[in-house]
Amino acid sequence: MSSFELADGLVYLNGNSLGPLPRGVAERVQDVVSREWGEGLIRSWNDAHWMELSRRIADRIAPLIGVHGRDLHLGDSTSVSLFKTTVAAARLRPDRKIIVVEPSTFPTDGYIAAGVADLMGLELRWCDPADPLAAVDDDVALLSLTHVDFRTGAMFDMDTITGEAQARGALVQWDLCHSTGAVPVDLTAAGADLAVGCTYKYLNGGPGSPAFLWVAPEHQAAARQPITGWMGHAEPFAMARDYVAVDGVGSFASGTPPVLALSALEAALEVFDEVSVPELRSRSLELTDLFMDLVEQRLPGVFEIVTPREHERRGSQVSLRHPSAYGVVQALIARDVIGDFRDPDVARFGFAPLYNTTDDVRLAVERLEAVIGNEEYADPAYSSRNAVT
Amino acid sequence: MSSFELADGLVYLNGNSLGPLPRGVAERVQDVVSREWGEGLIRSWNDAHWMELSRRIADRIAPLIGVHGRDLHLGDSTSVSLFKTTVAAARLRPDRKIIVVEPSTFPTDGYIAAGVADLMGLELRWCDPADPLAAVDDDVALLSLTHVDFRTGAMFDMDTITGEAQARGALVQWDLCHSTGAVPVDLTAAGADLAVGCTYKYLNGGPGSPAFLWVAPEHQAAARQPITGWMGHAEPFAMARDYVAVDGVGSFASGTPPVLALSALEAALEVFDEVSVPELRSRSLELTDLFMDLVEQRLPGVFEIVTPREHERRGSQVSLRHPSAYGVVQALIARDVIGDFRDPDVARFGFAPLYNTTDDVRLAVERLEAVIGNEEYADPAYSSRNAVT
Repeated sequence: MSSFELADGLVYLNGNSLGPLPRGVAERVQDVVSREWGEGLIRSWNDAHWMELSRRIADRIAPLIGVHGRDLHLGDSTSVSLFKTTVAAARLRPDRKIIVVEPSTFPTDGYIAAGVADLMGLELRWCDPADPLAAVDDDVALLSLTHVDFRTGAMFDMDTITGEAQARGALVQWDLCHSTGAVPVDLTAAGADLAVGCTYKYLNGGPGSPAFLWVAPEHQAAARQPITGWMGHAEPFAMARDYVAVDGVGSFASGTPPVLALSALEAALEVFDEVSVPELRSRSLELTDLFMDLVEQRLPGVFEIVTPREHERRGSQVSLRHPSAYGVVQALIARDVIGDFRDPDVARFGFAPLYNTTDDVRLAVERLEAVIGNEEYADPAYSSRNAVT
Repeated sequence: MSSFELADGLVYLNGNSLGPLPRGVAERVQDVVSREWGEGLIRSWNDAHWMELSRRIADRIAPLIGVHGRDLHLGDSTSVSLFKTTVAAARLRPDRKIIVVEPSTFPTDGYIAAGVADLMGLELRWCDPADPLAAVDDDVALLSLTHVDFRTGAMFDMDTITGEAQARGALVQWDLCHSTGAVPVDLTAAGADLAVGCTYKYLNGGPGSPAFLWVAPEHQAAARQPITGWMGHAEPFAMARDYVAVDGVGSFASGTPPVLALSALEAALEVFDEVSVPELRSRSLELTDLFMDLVEQRLPGVFEIVTPREHERRGSQVSLRHPSAYGVVQALIARDVIGDFRDPDVARFGFAPLYNTTDDVRLAVERLEAVIGNEEYADPAYSSRNAVT
């Protein structure tokens, strides 16, 4: 619990949006700025091994999602990473014309798929979240799903969906933004084709930290992403005229690596040294079970619990539906319980097993009772709305 | 001179690759990490105005390149930014099939253009650097040039080339990586269509800091970039299913802004408050003139000076050709004069008018005389090669 810089008395249930500051990160960033950049200057590209940051971070994230670090790349935002992997997927299935996406997914996933479809003359098909496979037929190049839904916390069955869609000839891509670091993921066991994930939520990499992308080893020789920048070249410093992609997932690199952000992320990931994914999962389920139980017991009929009760269908958050959800969230923030709001009527509470405790859960529910009991959510100050994921 | 954290006795002539650490940046980054992220947590998206970082930085860069801040966007690497603007340009000229690029340009420019051509069924045409307009005919959608060449320091005549290429119906895009902050640029006066630039060279934003992109106001209504992420949506927090681009250059945004890197960059740009572009240019020419004069006087016949003598064709660096250029650069670094090497035989010296002085120039040439006189460049330790721009 002492691995994070969290104020005493604060119940932070928004690590599914922006993880808190892990201890040691501020010092590491300061060292990179003052010593590596300030003193080392250009020499630090070699002396401080800045070029190896992506690879070193990949090795830390890999065990959390069941892959090898050598098959992961980091450097761009989630949206840009999704663009690269989605184009690459479409090129791997040139005789198929459809990309399937889920309509209630985090919006950038659908927007990026629409952008790729527009650019490549493909078609975007929305599937039923309750049965995404029903949309997968012989003309589907890619089924692109978010493992854990950002709004509801519901989790797809990665193994079954991947296998079934592949049996129909489609590739399967998983967005792991709301899974990585809190929910067990094994892309290799699932036989997935591609994946992308965020690092500023349960991985605590800091605001806007770079995303990771993963390409299954068997696709790497044929996979071609479109943003063919110099960092994906086989010999970037030869400064040759013509592009020749480096072997492996390194060809998914484009521009100069964002050194400050990658350094913060690398330091942030050290907290995962002390824990195992099954341990995290077990604590996460304990927290979300307790929260749902207490909400039902103490506030019966007040909220619709949107998040599935079944463990195998639940991520690491609990979403409560309420007509004044925005006001509920704001009133809780005023009481030092930080969750967030999602349009139109969802209050979200992320439970990060690295730092949240059963005491956090009890305090959150106590204060939720007060917010409901005193109708604090109806404060006119909460009439405007904005939110950030 | 005191605006930068540069060690006494160090002659840093590599700000054209990685600018030094401006005073105040380390403190600003520390505040963002510890207070805004660590204490403010998710609330800082609103309270610390993280969403406005790109726009605030745009307002600082705009006067350096003759545009309005509202027409600039920051958030991705130079390579990703070039990809977006190049696709947008091709879409603005759908009846034309050719992208013209210069073969000795910084490699990522050619690589990205090749990637776009491949993706969109276009053709990449290499032009003669001595006469890029000769390659521009009725089938050219875009002429994409780097204003100042990274290897030679030669500068194109932006006004003439832009006007002539446009008269043939092509759009013109300028890569300002080696200009911005050291050389006067007026995109508006030139009537340019698109531009992209780096912020970690003469703008001193830190290793891998985000690039800027610019789209001329008259193109913004029709321009469509392909990486349609949620940050370019008209209402990102409505989390709607379908993508609707926001008006203006904001539609060139894709993912969550990289807050740490943008914060460092914003603080770094404060040093430009104290100077004007004409002042910078005048000092830059004084420095490069003096360096070329002294090299010719003290080391006659030793180097070929690759950089043009004419002011109107010179950027803010001087490149010297020598068969042992790599060894020359390494031996100078050992003597605390930092320049860099570019394949196959070029020693580059960037002169940043914000912090380099005529004393730097004199010291550099003195030490260069020693390196040549003692044949220090022939040290067997300098037999391997690597370099970073």
